[in-house]
Amino acid sequence: MKTDEQAIRDLVQTWLEATKRHDYSTILDLMDDDVVFMVPGQEPFGKGAWSTRMTDVHVEGRSEIKEIKVSGDWAWMRQHLSVTVTPANGQPRVLSGDTLGILRKKPDGKWVLARDANLVMPERNTGPK
Amino acid sequence: MKTDEQAIRDLVQTWLEATKRHDYSTILDLMDDDVVFMVPGQEPFGKGAWSTRMTDVHVEGRSEIKEIKVSGDWAWMRQHLSVTVTPANGQPRVLSGDTLGILRKKPDGKWVLARDANLVMPERNTGPK
Repeated sequence: MKTDEQAIRDLVQTWLEATKRHDYSTILDLMDDDVVFMVPGQEPFGKGAWSTRMTDVHVEGRSEIKEIKVSGDWAWMRQHLSVTVTPANGQPRVLSGDTLGILRKKPDGKWVLARDANLVMPERNTGPK
Repeated sequence: MKTDEQAIRDLVQTWLEATKRHDYSTILDLMDDDVVFMVPGQEPFGKGAWSTRMTDVHVEGRSEIKEIKVSGDWAWMRQHLSVTVTPANGQPRVLSGDTLGILRKKPDGKWVLARDANLVMPERNTGPK
């Protein structure tokens, strides 16, 4: 039986690998239905807007998990992310920063991302052209 | 007996009021010893650097708490902050954005801020002159 902490580390790894191969249905499955993403200078957004932001962009990232704390069916995690973002018609840019995430254990025992504050510098080229 | 959620709301109110009157010892007392503050474009920092950042600046803020979730001795909170920052020799600037905070209930029952991701736009005039 995998520990909760290991399940959360696996979630991060699955997320990064699925991002690289544009497998967004896998990633959407790692989010809670009412997930809220917070990034600097923008209104918080949910699952639908997340998908829109990933259109026409290729992202490869590395995560260094700084800490994970589990308390019951909730957990929080701090990680340092380094990502290379390549728009469909643009040059790759390297971005980095920390994220603070809230994770939730669903009744079936599966962990999902519920809230995410992302301090990686804002991506300017991910919108529709 | 006050609920955990009410104790966290009171913490936010105490913090904002103490900020306005430059009562930093009260605020330091509302943080966990190993508190980590995350802001965009900077390395995460702790209690000591927090104090330095508050030197020579006057801050007045309003908080709208969006949600609080308590799980055992831990809680997370999402709020929208609007702050007016006035450097000693400068003009006031209005900043706003969300924060995602992790709070911890100490063994004596007191809630403190443990981690804070602050998406309010970075303050540029708070360093030493």
